[in-house]
Amino acid sequence: MKKVMLTGDRPTGRLHVGHYVGSLRRRVELQNTGDFDDIFIMIADAQALTDNADNPEKVRQNIIEVALDYMACGLNPEKSTLFIQSQVPELTELSFYYMNLVTVSRLQRNPTVKNEIKMRNFEASIPVGFFTYPISQAADITAFKATVVPVGEDQLPMLEQTKEIVHKFNSVYGDTLIDPKILLPENEACLRLPGIDGKAKMSKSLGNCIYLSEEPEDIKKKVFSMFTDPNHIRVEDPGSLEGNTVFTYLDAFCKPEYFAEFLPEYQNLDELKAHYQRGGLGDMKVKRFLNNVLQAELEPIRNRRKELQKDIPAIYEILKKGSEKAEAVAAQTLKEVKDAMKINYFDDKALIEAQAERFSK
Amino acid sequence: MKKVMLTGDRPTGRLHVGHYVGSLRRRVELQNTGDFDDIFIMIADAQALTDNADNPEKVRQNIIEVALDYMACGLNPEKSTLFIQSQVPELTELSFYYMNLVTVSRLQRNPTVKNEIKMRNFEASIPVGFFTYPISQAADITAFKATVVPVGEDQLPMLEQTKEIVHKFNSVYGDTLIDPKILLPENEACLRLPGIDGKAKMSKSLGNCIYLSEEPEDIKKKVFSMFTDPNHIRVEDPGSLEGNTVFTYLDAFCKPEYFAEFLPEYQNLDELKAHYQRGGLGDMKVKRFLNNVLQAELEPIRNRRKELQKDIPAIYEILKKGSEKAEAVAAQTLKEVKDAMKINYFDDKALIEAQAERFSK
Repeated sequence: MKKVMLTGDRPTGRLHVGHYVGSLRRRVELQNTGDFDDIFIMIADAQALTDNADNPEKVRQNIIEVALDYMACGLNPEKSTLFIQSQVPELTELSFYYMNLVTVSRLQRNPTVKNEIKMRNFEASIPVGFFTYPISQAADITAFKATVVPVGEDQLPMLEQTKEIVHKFNSVYGDTLIDPKILLPENEACLRLPGIDGKAKMSKSLGNCIYLSEEPEDIKKKVFSMFTDPNHIRVEDPGSLEGNTVFTYLDAFCKPEYFAEFLPEYQNLDELKAHYQRGGLGDMKVKRFLNNVLQAELEPIRNRRKELQKDIPAIYEILKKGSEKAEAVAAQTLKEVKDAMKINYFDDKALIEAQAERFSK
Repeated sequence: MKKVMLTGDRPTGRLHVGHYVGSLRRRVELQNTGDFDDIFIMIADAQALTDNADNPEKVRQNIIEVALDYMACGLNPEKSTLFIQSQVPELTELSFYYMNLVTVSRLQRNPTVKNEIKMRNFEASIPVGFFTYPISQAADITAFKATVVPVGEDQLPMLEQTKEIVHKFNSVYGDTLIDPKILLPENEACLRLPGIDGKAKMSKSLGNCIYLSEEPEDIKKKVFSMFTDPNHIRVEDPGSLEGNTVFTYLDAFCKPEYFAEFLPEYQNLDELKAHYQRGGLGDMKVKRFLNNVLQAELEPIRNRRKELQKDIPAIYEILKKGSEKAEAVAAQTLKEVKDAMKINYFDDKALIEAQAERFSK
């Protein structure tokens, strides 16, 4: 069986360091292993529209931002197919038929959907498109016959829904769809990187994100305003690592070689943490170190992005080519799905002949 | 503005006389007025699959039955576009985007859906596709820019849903979709013709239908077993018309000229009814008359059907051509919808140029 990876993001804003450590960095590594026969990276504009129907302009303007961030991070169109969801209409047709295989009450039990409904204060006014998006995700995953789906832990119930649809479809219509596997991030700090204010979620409206395209002085400003241990007042006080955003970011970003480069008095992160916990290490020093680390990590990304920004039509051309390739693959799957459901009537000689025979009697 | 009619049926069985008087007969009349610029008649296989996902073979086998019934009744492929819903994938894409404009609670309040959920004993296990089919119907209606939708009274809430989607879409994305008008049957007996047992609904499983393709002896047997007035025991008793199926069928089918032909001792239906009500008219005589009427009505339909049955591949060819024409029209509407939503990015020179300009600064 081919190894195929599918993943993607909703284009509702520029991507930030949370996206990077939670998923993007890993994708690039996986891409560069050469282990996959196919990699599909989807800009999920249609999914973004399910709760932004009133503001399509936001989605429209952010597709390019996400594409630039992708390529700046190292996603390579020669190795990964970058495409826009809405430009692959076969996905809506698959969704349509999968909707017959899922009950309303099953959707209502989906914890991810439940939680997101709460977060968005939808309650009584959930758009149907938003309510049914786990089914649409199943269409995305199965259309490309993905075997591996790297996502955050919060997305586990979505993948469960996909697996149920795959099993139901295959049992009703015969083996057609591929059962995907989820791939979770390995590093705990990367599962959900907090905002710079220590809040659980980075969000544009909270102004607590560090974007991948952030300028050096803004990165520095944000690092220096980061939430640490509020009880760590004097340098000599013992400090706590629990909920200390600066250390969470170091867990996510720090590589051993950064100590030699920026903080040679420590061998590694464990030594630094130990010193902080026993007291005698000030927040400013740790923040300076984190700033150096982040600057080192983000500089090449930002520079690549600036290069890419010089030719915007070329980025759209890449997305167009990718969407064409994605559409060809999805069309093949859709044909198999419709063959299995036996709804390709006009190509169905056996049906037409058997009926002609029956009526001739 | 062009006058366009859209209507259709679910292919879950042969069509019966209820379909005929409730909708088909009128469609043929409307077709033959020449008043319409376009008429689309849809065999709604995709909608039938929403509650027959486990039994696609039933749907698959009945498409030809419905097509034969259509043409036997006088729907003429030269004047009306006969097509199969699933062969117009643009409809699923429209549904997908319309789903963002309707809330879950709005769907839950739809009385037609509520009632059908009850009839099918779905309750906790409603398939999502079935639950959302009012949205799919809005896609069907708007895809063809239908101005007139001839349906039964029970379908009024469905059309209300379509109108809401049209208004919402046009107010969010700009005037794009056409607001359709419903056309109800004029004759009350035709609104919902009961089964021969007097039950409200004709259904294959109750065995109470007279099919359009029924053989003469079967029509006769069914007419003679019809439910009448259970208190009308002796010929001289006064009889009641209320819930008297034989008279309901006469209301739906009888034309004045049938009296001269089959029952010259009465001028018209009112005279016959008056006699029945005051007593002295036996059920058998009325049933013989109804049988003659139904035989006269159904014979030409049955004969045309037998002719059509001789060339089944030709019927599929007609449906294929119709589906191609329908797809071309739906594709044009979809393009307008996506242009209004501004999601045709690759053709959107203004977007690409403005972004290139912005990033060059």
